[in-house]
Amino acid sequence: MAALAPGTVANLGPGFDVLGLAIEGLGDVVIAEKSVEPGVRLTSIEGDDGRLPRETSANTAGIAAAAVLRLSGLDIGVELSLKKGLPLCSGLGSSASSAVAAAFAVNRLIGNPLRKSELIGPCLEAEERVSGRHADNVAPALLGGLVLVRSVDPPDLIRLPLPPDLTIVLATPDFELPTREARAVLPDTVPLTTMVSQSAQIASLVSACYSGDLSLLSRCLLDPVVTPVRAPLIPGADAAMQAALGAGALGSSISGAGPSIFALCRSERSAQAAAQVMVAAFQDAGLAASIHLSQVNCPGVRVVDPEATGFPR
Amino acid sequence: MAALAPGTVANLGPGFDVLGLAIEGLGDVVIAEKSVEPGVRLTSIEGDDGRLPRETSANTAGIAAAAVLRLSGLDIGVELSLKKGLPLCSGLGSSASSAVAAAFAVNRLIGNPLRKSELIGPCLEAEERVSGRHADNVAPALLGGLVLVRSVDPPDLIRLPLPPDLTIVLATPDFELPTREARAVLPDTVPLTTMVSQSAQIASLVSACYSGDLSLLSRCLLDPVVTPVRAPLIPGADAAMQAALGAGALGSSISGAGPSIFALCRSERSAQAAAQVMVAAFQDAGLAASIHLSQVNCPGVRVVDPEATGFPR
Repeated sequence: MAALAPGTVANLGPGFDVLGLAIEGLGDVVIAEKSVEPGVRLTSIEGDDGRLPRETSANTAGIAAAAVLRLSGLDIGVELSLKKGLPLCSGLGSSASSAVAAAFAVNRLIGNPLRKSELIGPCLEAEERVSGRHADNVAPALLGGLVLVRSVDPPDLIRLPLPPDLTIVLATPDFELPTREARAVLPDTVPLTTMVSQSAQIASLVSACYSGDLSLLSRCLLDPVVTPVRAPLIPGADAAMQAALGAGALGSSISGAGPSIFALCRSERSAQAAAQVMVAAFQDAGLAASIHLSQVNCPGVRVVDPEATGFPR
Repeated sequence: MAALAPGTVANLGPGFDVLGLAIEGLGDVVIAEKSVEPGVRLTSIEGDDGRLPRETSANTAGIAAAAVLRLSGLDIGVELSLKKGLPLCSGLGSSASSAVAAAFAVNRLIGNPLRKSELIGPCLEAEERVSGRHADNVAPALLGGLVLVRSVDPPDLIRLPLPPDLTIVLATPDFELPTREARAVLPDTVPLTTMVSQSAQIASLVSACYSGDLSLLSRCLLDPVVTPVRAPLIPGADAAMQAALGAGALGSSISGAGPSIFALCRSERSAQAAAQVMVAAFQDAGLAASIHLSQVNCPGVRVVDPEATGFPR
């Protein structure tokens, strides 16, 4: 049984820790097979240049798989192979993707004892171990599209509609930003007036999702709290965001904890224009950047043919 | 020219300073007539038991009317009569209602030089003088229904849909809570985690408005920031909110700066049940409380017949 889970853009605009978007064409694949020995073993990882921990209990795929077995109460042995399609530490939800693919594949392998919505717990358990207990990567990787996380404990997830022509650009500079460092700059508190303004922006964003009002979407696709303190850690990030807006993007901010920058655009053509100037901005800061374009209403985790060529990466 | 502007529930649930709802059957009326002497004069106020300032420049009706004349650039004399239908200092948007009725009546009287959306500036100017520069009372009094304030400067207002059967209960205890005192207990800052949670609740509330998911509406109709610090200032408030929830209300918190408490209910019948227990809760705290029920998709300011009997009051 093989499953592919997509990469995701968390912290979407004003949705710090609560809004995440699934992307297409980038994701991790987990192949799960039954084995004689009970418990979970992670037998191989490809595509990570040897950087991920090999111990099952230290890898998000292994942690999520073990949690699915524990929740289902079945005493079964499972072997996992992980094929990384997502770059590590890039702000594209790599750890969440591995967890979601593993949880989904294992649940399928053992006869679907858990509903899809129940897989969120095992995935959160895995995500917590490597990057904190937040659901804005695992939720869209599981459900697809744009997901609002009303609550993590207990999980309460809302899939939001988006105008179908929207295209998201992801520019990933060749730069390491450790999540630890990205979290260290977060403020512990914010002024009440900031909370009010942030509330108003995310509420407006949800309204724009339903009404399709792109002008409104553009006015509220801001993050005045987290992006301003994180952007200075990423050379060229501010310039790339400004360039994207200048090229007509509806909004642009940091994807997850960075260093990837996203720009949401009204069409694929507009996205291509934004991509060009974003790459140029990173180049000016001395960094190469890779570009990925995606539609916005993409499916979440799904079964794939493990023998197919053309796995992501 | 006579105009009626409705009362309003500001700070709706998680929408502190950004969500306000127009109510029906309660409002202020302003009659505007041309006079020879240029400028605005407030010639009479009824229904306030003599408590409001009589000087034109100290009353929100007078301030808003003068601002409309100033913006329109017309050198015209206007006399205003104000008929208060809303109780003062009750958290039902009394000052905003007077401002909106005056701005609308004067604009009509002088030939509509300003669009309706342009009246928000004069109304904000008036509101600022008496209770701070926030738009979550004046915006729904002007536009009707539930209004989201994305931005005050410049004004950016979004009318949100609501399931039509919803009914709101307002319980107004016989208790004075000066706005100054209600504002003094507000925190200057909130933890980042609180901002995240508040963002998630208001975003979910907007989603529920569009989707009509009443269960979701109920789960997110919370105010964990402002209501907990204000409720202790109002005897019986906590008990009234709990009683309303116990009687099946979807949510209950403080209306505006209080002391009125609102409860949003799925039907008029449910609202009547909530109203009974809210009155009883205030009674247990030694306070009489008056009750008002309203549908949720009510019109904003409108022209009325100045000679009609049955003015609000």
